[in-house]
Amino acid sequence: MGRSEFEFIAALQQRAEIRPPVALGIGDDAAVMHPTAYPQVVTTDMLMEGVDFLWPQASAELIGRKALAVNLSDIAAMGCVPTAAFVSVALPRARGRVFADALYDGLFALAEETQVTIAGGDTNTWDGPLVINVTVLGTPIGTQPVLRSGARPGDRILVTGALGGSLLGRHLTFTPRLQEIRAIRDRIEVHSLIDVSDGFAADLHHLLIASGCGADLDAARIPIHPDARRMADQLSPLEHALGDGEDFELILTTDRGSAELLLSTWIHSTPLTDVGVCTAEPGCRLHHPDGTQTELLPLGWTHAVE
Amino acid sequence: MGRSEFEFIAALQQRAEIRPPVALGIGDDAAVMHPTAYPQVVTTDMLMEGVDFLWPQASAELIGRKALAVNLSDIAAMGCVPTAAFVSVALPRARGRVFADALYDGLFALAEETQVTIAGGDTNTWDGPLVINVTVLGTPIGTQPVLRSGARPGDRILVTGALGGSLLGRHLTFTPRLQEIRAIRDRIEVHSLIDVSDGFAADLHHLLIASGCGADLDAARIPIHPDARRMADQLSPLEHALGDGEDFELILTTDRGSAELLLSTWIHSTPLTDVGVCTAEPGCRLHHPDGTQTELLPLGWTHAVE
Repeated sequence: MGRSEFEFIAALQQRAEIRPPVALGIGDDAAVMHPTAYPQVVTTDMLMEGVDFLWPQASAELIGRKALAVNLSDIAAMGCVPTAAFVSVALPRARGRVFADALYDGLFALAEETQVTIAGGDTNTWDGPLVINVTVLGTPIGTQPVLRSGARPGDRILVTGALGGSLLGRHLTFTPRLQEIRAIRDRIEVHSLIDVSDGFAADLHHLLIASGCGADLDAARIPIHPDARRMADQLSPLEHALGDGEDFELILTTDRGSAELLLSTWIHSTPLTDVGVCTAEPGCRLHHPDGTQTELLPLGWTHAVE
Repeated sequence: MGRSEFEFIAALQQRAEIRPPVALGIGDDAAVMHPTAYPQVVTTDMLMEGVDFLWPQASAELIGRKALAVNLSDIAAMGCVPTAAFVSVALPRARGRVFADALYDGLFALAEETQVTIAGGDTNTWDGPLVINVTVLGTPIGTQPVLRSGARPGDRILVTGALGGSLLGRHLTFTPRLQEIRAIRDRIEVHSLIDVSDGFAADLHHLLIASGCGADLDAARIPIHPDARRMADQLSPLEHALGDGEDFELILTTDRGSAELLLSTWIHSTPLTDVGVCTAEPGCRLHHPDGTQTELLPLGWTHAVE
């Protein structure tokens, strides 16, 4: 880096606008958060060059953006609003200050969009590849977070957006579903909630297992992203939609009446789709338009049941 | 790793004992913390192989321990008690599950010693060197954290332990001064506080600049660690004590009466030493036994003033 670490941190400190519940941001041994009346949530994610992104195929701005965005998606998946972010980086020394500035540009742009305070972090340089870790704190929409474990038999299963093929670029540019979950929680009681990071089938299984439920899904209703159709390989668009990771859409469950109310009054530009129902019987069955049924396994692979 | 990431995380989840204010630990999209009546503090630190430790010169256990310990030192330096830790790792794939287990052994051992809940994290493997990032939350001893910025002219400057030569091993094995700061805050009002990570001179300057003060220090009273005398180079033991980083001792200031009370009743095995006084005049002057005076610069280098 052209200037010293202290100067770089001072520049970050200047740039980071302090918003409540942050009381004190960058510059002491720790940040200080005001006391809050409701439970807080905390999530953390580490992204590594060569695993979660490639450089220079992905720009420094988009890498910084993604490092914050994946955490914001986790906050949305708890039914919460993000409040403060803490950013640690191991910057490749050879890329210099311009690279570091661009990385933080991407990060700060998304932080401002979502009203999150960059309240602390740890800035390092080394001769290794880029590593960036972000921790985000959040506060509930309403008074309580929503867990994975609250789904009940009879709940409708809803999913935001469209699935599959995020590797073509959306894994870097997606918008965390913060506005959508606010609109949803303002209107209905959400029983359970998770975001799609490992893949729709895998993450739906996490939710079902945590809730002690199974599910019946309507294959024809799975929202398939155009990118899933653009993936030029042997998998079908449906298989991409069910199996691909990093969609960062939300899967939620709620009772039938609430689902109907929500869907009939949904005016947001992000699609919201009812894809099936929770069952007391464990396992996850995918019902196809031709009347056949397959078992949906956690990794998105399907095999015939009957 | 021999088993899948999910199995490894499930094993961590089994192992992590949940203590308040943690309400929900590893296993959902985020951890949940109970609401608290007082401000919370948050700190994060990233350690990188080849920069903060060498492997196998340092064992996996000691690396895991250090990654948590440096954060606990920051929590102590806010006058707080640690509550929850979030651990992200990029594990070198070739070292396998045994290495990962040993790393977490070191981490969990210190977490149990200090009653900190490992409440979340992100476990990754890659072909790069080991990177570990820990974020720790804390709650005040009393009702408020102690900042760097509260020193006042006339305050006595106290330091725990002894300084210098931590590179010989203490940077891996040090005990964060959590018990000491509790004993101190239970007895007196601390005006300002910082831990020695960059080096005594550098960190004292951080505190003085944040407080708008200067200082007069008594060179003969600087507590020099035996390791500083064992450093076989051209620097004197005093220069090592003033300039070396990663001592993880605490520097605090308080009024003269409180300092006298504290020192006269101090029964803890960790030394506590009065090394000087805060002044309205800026800068930091080091008074030597021979009557000469040098200016103490932030990097620990000294040059003659008169």
